Amino acid sequence: MAAKYVSINNQLFLEEDAKIGVSDLSMHRGYGIFDYLKVIDNRPIFIEDHFNRFYNSAKEMFLDVVMDRVQLRKAIEALVEKNGIATSGIKLLLTGGYSEDGYRMGKPNLVILQYPLNMQDENKLDTGMNLVTYDHQRQLPYIKTIDYLMAVRLHPFMKEKNADDVLYHNTGVITECPRANFFVVYDKEIITPKNNILKGITRSKVLKFKISGYTITEEDFSIDDLSGIKEAFITSTTQYAYPVTAIDGRMIGDGKAGPVTRQVRELLFKLTYAEK
Amino acid sequence: MAAKYVSINNQLFLEEDAKIGVSDLSMHRGYGIFDYLKVIDNRPIFIEDHFNRFYNSAKEMFLDVVMDRVQLRKAIEALVEKNGIATSGIKLLLTGGYSEDGYRMGKPNLVILQYPLNMQDENKLDTGMNLVTYDHQRQLPYIKTIDYLMAVRLHPFMKEKNADDVLYHNTGVITECPRANFFVVYDKEIITPKNNILKGITRSKVLKFKISGYTITEEDFSIDDLSGIKEAFITSTTQYAYPVTAIDGRMIGDGKAGPVTRQVRELLFKLTYAEK
Repeated sequence: MAAKYVSINNQLFLEEDAKIGVSDLSMHRGYGIFDYLKVIDNRPIFIEDHFNRFYNSAKEMFLDVVMDRVQLRKAIEALVEKNGIATSGIKLLLTGGYSEDGYRMGKPNLVILQYPLNMQDENKLDTGMNLVTYDHQRQLPYIKTIDYLMAVRLHPFMKEKNADDVLYHNTGVITECPRANFFVVYDKEIITPKNNILKGITRSKVLKFKISGYTITEEDFSIDDLSGIKEAFITSTTQYAYPVTAIDGRMIGDGKAGPVTRQVRELLFKLTYAEK
Repeated sequence: MAAKYVSINNQLFLEEDAKIGVSDLSMHRGYGIFDYLKVIDNRPIFIEDHFNRFYNSAKEMFLDVVMDRVQLRKAIEALVEKNGIATSGIKLLLTGGYSEDGYRMGKPNLVILQYPLNMQDENKLDTGMNLVTYDHQRQLPYIKTIDYLMAVRLHPFMKEKNADDVLYHNTGVITECPRANFFVVYDKEIITPKNNILKGITRSKVLKFKISGYTITEEDFSIDDLSGIKEAFITSTTQYAYPVTAIDGRMIGDGKAGPVTRQVRELLFKLTYAEK
């Protein structure tokens, strides 16, 4: 549930009054982009990274953000202040706008929503997540569009497989989870897929870490390569690094969060809380 | 522009008041399905075919239509009567519904909109359309989802190429246009792609036609196979059959609407106006 107030085109509305006309191109053609960032104790985290990606997604989809970065930051701050919630997730949603014929782009609508941060239960950290693999390549993977048609459709499949999330592969080559990047840990290497993925901001932070005894690289690998891994984890804005302890029902390592995953998670916390 | 009144969950609203809350899953995740049918002189055309597809799309995407066919037909009739427009296009739009977390499905919202029928200019029938090919495979092609992310994004590309529409191919194998099916005519054969497409209702009617001197079949073919064609046309609910006279800048036949295309178009008009 979004917080009490929602910003639409830089105006604040009560959540129950926050509505968009039925000619918007997001409803008719699934056309829009978004980004999602954390605010901790009123400090937006990695906001320049998120803005870089948001404005780039908009440009790639030929959508005008209307507000510049200074205005957008002020709009976020105004929403956070009005809601009086210091720690949250902020979603920036830019739609294809009101379309005369339900097909061509209009002037985009910019919606900003504040959500409680839904982190995985810290107590379950030790047992981690189960993933189930699925052959699907997202269209325009490098752009953060609202296209999650397959991901949402797979919810019943995930439930049936008793999985916490899906791990996509492209005809055998591992790519990403619908809302997170994926890392594996070998004896001396930490590897994350390189191509056909959304390059997450948390992922980019991890790629710059120094972990004693390990190299950290971007490189594609296949489902078959999973047999030799010691640990696996996902990264995302909400989950930081979170352990993956089983894939397609096969246990990874001893089925518990490993030391590298824990170390990456700690480093991400430190980096996040060092952010001003 | 949609007509004066819009139906949302079986209630009529003035177009300017017809709005959906910003937590709807169509806006957040591009999740929804639709269908589009013609109403001519207050008679809905091929309504059972459209209902079959609409309810099937909903089922495939795990969405509940809420209304049964009798209720849905009444809702369409109520909208047509209220707007007082006897001939129009009717769009049935079923969204993923209000989502608590912006990711999981809610109770779907059913929106019904009435539009003027935007047929191609009959005077331009002789010159037909230019298509430009593009390598893209729609996800879940058999389901009429709202995913037109690529199609809308290609509008500037189409303009640059001076094309009226895009013709998708899957690594060289022709599939469909974003909103229409595609047919080619050889000396004695009329052929339309078989796989990885949305099977249009107009297409299904054409496949049952008898055209003297021609077989009509579903069969995949490649871009290279286009070199031998005599005519090409698209089919859709709004365009019936409409001639394609150039693809990627190469003229087809003599660059004018051919006799087979005209005959198919005539047969579709007859079938449509025979519908009660």
